[in-house]
Amino acid sequence: MFRENLMKIVDNVEGGLAGLLMGFDGIAVESYARDKQTLDINTVGMEFSFILTQVRKAAEILEVGKVQEISIRTESINIIIRVLNQDYFLALALGPGGNFGKGRYLLRVVAPKLQAEL
Amino acid sequence: MFRENLMKIVDNVEGGLAGLLMGFDGIAVESYARDKQTLDINTVGMEFSFILTQVRKAAEILEVGKVQEISIRTESINIIIRVLNQDYFLALALGPGGNFGKGRYLLRVVAPKLQAEL
Repeated sequence: MFRENLMKIVDNVEGGLAGLLMGFDGIAVESYARDKQTLDINTVGMEFSFILTQVRKAAEILEVGKVQEISIRTESINIIIRVLNQDYFLALALGPGGNFGKGRYLLRVVAPKLQAEL
Repeated sequence: MFRENLMKIVDNVEGGLAGLLMGFDGIAVESYARDKQTLDINTVGMEFSFILTQVRKAAEILEVGKVQEISIRTESINIIIRVLNQDYFLALALGPGGNFGKGRYLLRVVAPKLQAEL
């Protein structure tokens, strides 16, 4: 079910490379890669889970409410992260020309379904 | 000139709260707040400059090219950060209903002007 939802996101967005459901401790629950050659989404998630924790701490200090979404764009990848709850997040990796807006939209639509199961 | 460019961004986007030009060391070059009551953009920038440095390190490890843009959405604020060069970044804070797409667009348009002067 987790995998089906990840596929629904990755396969329906232009430039979708991979999707990941991961704990803030850096341990993946499920992942799906459309193209395994380009990117190891688990490694990406692990690198960013630590940063996500830092962002949450910063948001707490700044009193700007809970962190809902983070996106990072580099020269060769676009990562959109959606916080599901205190313990888990959903990540989508897009290629440089990927449809960022649609990726965000799909994460937003699928998030409640995953939240209900976590 | 820096301030004029920050104003051009903040005042032309729906929900624009403040803009900031800052070094990765957390020291601000210039800032502009439309509404000083809601948010201290300098404090926000300082909190995130450390995180930005972490993101750049992660991108290096993952070999995904240089970091160009980061955005963070919380319950009460939307922050879009655009990396200008090795030393400086540009940040825009929007209210929760702010026009994210237009904010990103304006940062992208103004960035080369600031880069030329840094």
